[in-house]
Amino acid sequence: MSRTPALTALTRTLKPLDGYALYVGDDALIASHRLSEWLTRAPDLEEEVALANIALDLLGQARFLLGYAGRSSGLSEDELAYQRTDREYRNCLLAELPNGDFAHTVLRLLFFSAYQRQLYAALGESADDEIAAFAKKAFVEVDYHYEYAVSWTLRLGDGTEESHDRASDALDELWPYTAEFFAEDELVTRLAADGLVPDPERLQGPWMEQVSAVLAEATLGTAPSGTWRPGGGRSGVHTEDLSYLLAEMQSVHRAHPGATW
Amino acid sequence: MSRTPALTALTRTLKPLDGYALYVGDDALIASHRLSEWLTRAPDLEEEVALANIALDLLGQARFLLGYAGRSSGLSEDELAYQRTDREYRNCLLAELPNGDFAHTVLRLLFFSAYQRQLYAALGESADDEIAAFAKKAFVEVDYHYEYAVSWTLRLGDGTEESHDRASDALDELWPYTAEFFAEDELVTRLAADGLVPDPERLQGPWMEQVSAVLAEATLGTAPSGTWRPGGGRSGVHTEDLSYLLAEMQSVHRAHPGATW
Repeated sequence: MSRTPALTALTRTLKPLDGYALYVGDDALIASHRLSEWLTRAPDLEEEVALANIALDLLGQARFLLGYAGRSSGLSEDELAYQRTDREYRNCLLAELPNGDFAHTVLRLLFFSAYQRQLYAALGESADDEIAAFAKKAFVEVDYHYEYAVSWTLRLGDGTEESHDRASDALDELWPYTAEFFAEDELVTRLAADGLVPDPERLQGPWMEQVSAVLAEATLGTAPSGTWRPGGGRSGVHTEDLSYLLAEMQSVHRAHPGATW
Repeated sequence: MSRTPALTALTRTLKPLDGYALYVGDDALIASHRLSEWLTRAPDLEEEVALANIALDLLGQARFLLGYAGRSSGLSEDELAYQRTDREYRNCLLAELPNGDFAHTVLRLLFFSAYQRQLYAALGESADDEIAAFAKKAFVEVDYHYEYAVSWTLRLGDGTEESHDRASDALDELWPYTAEFFAEDELVTRLAADGLVPDPERLQGPWMEQVSAVLAEATLGTAPSGTWRPGGGRSGVHTEDLSYLLAEMQSVHRAHPGATW
């Protein structure tokens, strides 16, 4: 696309809060797409409807946040969604990992929705009125996602031996990626100092408390203790899996920009 | 699956109105799945949200109708969705055709939602109170789907030369399949005589009038005049494409029935 080089430069020079909106919006967009891969493949019709509704909520959040992120630079939500390369995506790595089995989807949603609950609750107090209003509305959505994830974590963890083992495997595999939610960087530090976004460290304690209680009740034990903490998503260093996801997501738009033919 | 042979026999002996609920429910289920294949692949975020919402409405309709169809035989919606073979599916062929390009999706939705509007309006007068109440509620949903399909048909048909040609190709390809909406068979004739469902012939005139007006306004001319009218879906004779769709839709459920592991 001839547009891509110029767009690359633009996204590098977004205003700070616009850049932060990409962090949060890309998380929602990529998580939404992974969830929608379950459609036509869910274990039953009720779960298919539930996962589809969650995916739609997240897609709605992404649309607001990408629209916000691009507005002052004259970029549309579609340009940001469809014309960035993987190196320009700012989502955390947890969001882009392939789905795995249903237990992986449930545990990922537990970690992610618990993080979004803390984040949106704090962003509801942002000095930016528009972000604050958005966060208050989105909190209600992710609160429901969290309840859904909790109920399935309990059902799987405290279910059969097979379901417990699968949930336990998912916990071990996904846990290291959760550290990235709370990583500090220059952009976040600066915005937090201005009261525009929460200090990520302040979110980590309540998140850990909440998630630990759920894991314990689900008989999944305590959080794994390893020290490997993958990161890089916020600076555009992603896994190969994101490239495949974007290739699929962007293929139709690239072939027919704006569907206007 | 050890269950399948018994299930085959059961679905053959459903009560008449239960069998008819499968016709309508399978249409909604298969159409929903084709639409949800657009997720992660739509031309822009707004269309992705719109198609996902339509797919969810149809999935909700399918859940009610499959639940209704199985209840008096002790079959759950999930058993009917995930444990039937393609020969036991009763959807019309139009619903199962592969997506093709966006113009195909728009034209298929135009034909299908216009049919559902007529059907649900008529079923709202059914002598079966539960079906009538469902149809009244579902009418509001398909009325929105129809408005969406009309607006895109006009935009594509009366847009660029490329979009017009694609819409015109979709019209030629899909039109022959619309005759199956209005096919009579023994089951429908009997139920119509009892005032439980509409006589399909009565729906065809208003449908044709409505669709023809949209095609004319979209500068897509009049309906194609060929006489090839594929059918067989209502008696379980389907295209190969349905087998692939079901293989994907049923794979997770067959591996982990009820997701209980």
